[in-house]
Amino acid sequence: MAHRVVVIGSGFGGLFAAKKLKRADVEVTLISRVSHHLFQPLLYQVATGILSQGEIAPATREILKRQRNADVLLGEVTAIDLTNKTVTSQVGVHRKVTEYDTLIVAAGASTGYFGNDQFEPYAPGLKSIDDALELRARIFGAFEMAELQDKPEDAAPWLTFVVVGAGPTGVELAGQIAELSRRTLRKDFRSIDPTQARVILLEGGDGVLSTFGPTQSTKARQALEKMGIDVRCNAMVQTVDATGVEVKYKDGSSEYLSSNCVVWAAGVQASPLGAQLAAQSDAEVDRGGRVKVNPDLTLPGHPEVFVIGDMMALDNLPGVAQVAMQGAKHSARTIRARLEDKPEPGAFDYFDKGSMATISRFRAVANVGKLQLRGFLAWMAWLFIHILYLVGFQQKVSTLGHWMVAFLGRARAERTFTLEQARGSLTNEREARPPG
Amino acid sequence: MAHRVVVIGSGFGGLFAAKKLKRADVEVTLISRVSHHLFQPLLYQVATGILSQGEIAPATREILKRQRNADVLLGEVTAIDLTNKTVTSQVGVHRKVTEYDTLIVAAGASTGYFGNDQFEPYAPGLKSIDDALELRARIFGAFEMAELQDKPEDAAPWLTFVVVGAGPTGVELAGQIAELSRRTLRKDFRSIDPTQARVILLEGGDGVLSTFGPTQSTKARQALEKMGIDVRCNAMVQTVDATGVEVKYKDGSSEYLSSNCVVWAAGVQASPLGAQLAAQSDAEVDRGGRVKVNPDLTLPGHPEVFVIGDMMALDNLPGVAQVAMQGAKHSARTIRARLEDKPEPGAFDYFDKGSMATISRFRAVANVGKLQLRGFLAWMAWLFIHILYLVGFQQKVSTLGHWMVAFLGRARAERTFTLEQARGSLTNEREARPPG
Repeated sequence: MAHRVVVIGSGFGGLFAAKKLKRADVEVTLISRVSHHLFQPLLYQVATGILSQGEIAPATREILKRQRNADVLLGEVTAIDLTNKTVTSQVGVHRKVTEYDTLIVAAGASTGYFGNDQFEPYAPGLKSIDDALELRARIFGAFEMAELQDKPEDAAPWLTFVVVGAGPTGVELAGQIAELSRRTLRKDFRSIDPTQARVILLEGGDGVLSTFGPTQSTKARQALEKMGIDVRCNAMVQTVDATGVEVKYKDGSSEYLSSNCVVWAAGVQASPLGAQLAAQSDAEVDRGGRVKVNPDLTLPGHPEVFVIGDMMALDNLPGVAQVAMQGAKHSARTIRARLEDKPEPGAFDYFDKGSMATISRFRAVANVGKLQLRGFLAWMAWLFIHILYLVGFQQKVSTLGHWMVAFLGRARAERTFTLEQARGSLTNEREARPPG
Repeated sequence: MAHRVVVIGSGFGGLFAAKKLKRADVEVTLISRVSHHLFQPLLYQVATGILSQGEIAPATREILKRQRNADVLLGEVTAIDLTNKTVTSQVGVHRKVTEYDTLIVAAGASTGYFGNDQFEPYAPGLKSIDDALELRARIFGAFEMAELQDKPEDAAPWLTFVVVGAGPTGVELAGQIAELSRRTLRKDFRSIDPTQARVILLEGGDGVLSTFGPTQSTKARQALEKMGIDVRCNAMVQTVDATGVEVKYKDGSSEYLSSNCVVWAAGVQASPLGAQLAAQSDAEVDRGGRVKVNPDLTLPGHPEVFVIGDMMALDNLPGVAQVAMQGAKHSARTIRARLEDKPEPGAFDYFDKGSMATISRFRAVANVGKLQLRGFLAWMAWLFIHILYLVGFQQKVSTLGHWMVAFLGRARAERTFTLEQARGSLTNEREARPPG
């Protein structure tokens, strides 16, 4: 019987681990709680009506259909048993136990609220297709609700969008909300003026996109402010509730921002499977729930278990696609070396290919080595690289089509939300509250 | 103040009524519980992974943005007051009362179970975007569940699809499920063979697509059977529950079909607003909840109220887009004639432009007057007409792109379902049941 490799997760880590084992003499079973591979860097475009789900979330088994040594199973992993080498997964009440010889854990991270999980219903994050569709309904729904109000003061909180966290996701979301209100929706309404929507970007630190360095950060902030985005740094969120956000600033002042659409892009929390691994091994988890791995990405005391991607804590590497993909490749190479009795590659050596974030159409920042690009050139680089890495030819063509519609034109093709969302339970809580 | 026309509904009736009033000296307010116009004839393609929501459900206000005399309001109409001429609508708990001088009621129909609403959770219909996304998850999810089973007998009910009702929607759905199992998913799985999926089409009457006449019906049935679809006519559904369907045949025999994916395409029920109108006027509703209108489409006793589309009962006209669109045009013409003090057009005269239904790629049936087309020619006509009528240039281009992927290739671009759907509450009930 061939060596059994079980991979948990269908993100960049899990999918690429499976792919890199294509020529190895192994049987790969990829288990994921969703049936798709999510191209997370473009999730904000699903939330803001540019792309459809299918364009960034192709079926994982479709991607792997020609890889005969790989099977894909739907299931949410509830338990890992390091002693008996099994993984238990569930779809609803349907349980399945899968045995492994080698395990690659790449279950990723979800939105993290730093101990304030009560914020979540009022400030969803943006980590999954569910999140993106929920945000899409909240963003486009907010303008619909504003249009319904008889008094401008009642419309105001519906026309105030607060994005918490000014990393790439926060900046991209704030930029897109501003663009859609100023361009796409400009002539769509009769009672309200969507171009007057307030977009407030809150950041706890000193500047936006701080990982890109001070020059890029300053220029990015200027670009965001030119778009009409209200950027507020050194701003700590105290509470988020049904009607808005309370913020405390570093200078001691504080204020309450009335908003019916708040997005949380301020933190992530690694999958709880990390804690399960730590409890059964010599490993520790850090504050974000990430597992401190050996330099070769294995779990301390368990050379047959790899932890990669957003679940892994090593050398302060960031939770980005490149780290996950390179970690996947490294794990696959280690597994192949072992099976072929060759020397293992040893310590994981991350090669930083650079990072980029879009600010608006035609404008981005990109750092590649010591090179710092900005503006249209960086945006073209962003466009090229994202199309290149997007999985599937049809996804590439279709995405380019939607980008032309959105960036050269003004329209957004994917604004649809469901009746269930329109019936909006959150609306109820907001409006049922006594005024004041 | 201009004459106020309130339109309820954003389907073919409501949208076209608003559009046809473009040049009239009126203020149009279109109220709909969803923010999109739904191109219902292609809904089955969203359910089966070919199209995205945005392609068949563009935002209503985007379509009407250049029509300055039209406003669009989100809201589910809960009450119509014919005496005070007001419409009350709600989004969650948010209520709004809108006054009208003329009212056009085009709230459409939802799936009807002929008094057996308990079937609904186990056999959803296909009338809304919500329905299509739910069915998409159930159809693609069923194959995922089948792959997880250890025993073939446990996989069987997941690989059995029952479509109830062999009108156009039922035939199109059954055809697409067969195609996706035989073509799209053919090499996607390792444990199961998707091409062995059973697709059963149940019809209470004598034949499929009976409104197309006996020749078309017979040929359509042959084509469906050639695709491997199990067509059963004279079949009455007795019960639908978590694990399947009990059917009784005209010959007295009966059987239980174990299936975890049942779709109801057997009937519709007009909006409950019809009953509200009848209770306040001299009108009656028929068994399907449709309002018996005057020949000029007005409500008996209320010349200022028009009822059109699937809510209207007149001369046994069918619930199709053409009837709704022509009814919308007729209402708008009547309103304009009144405002301009010209003679009213009088009785509604429906012009039947014909009807069509697809059976599979490259194959359809179409009746135009006395002409009966079949096969590839009918399919080309279907393709041409649907692209022509699809609202919006970008939707046309994008849909054509997805059709090329699906019909010339084998892939389906929009298979994504959400984590919430994957966690599937229905799965729980099915598997929690004692076996047997």
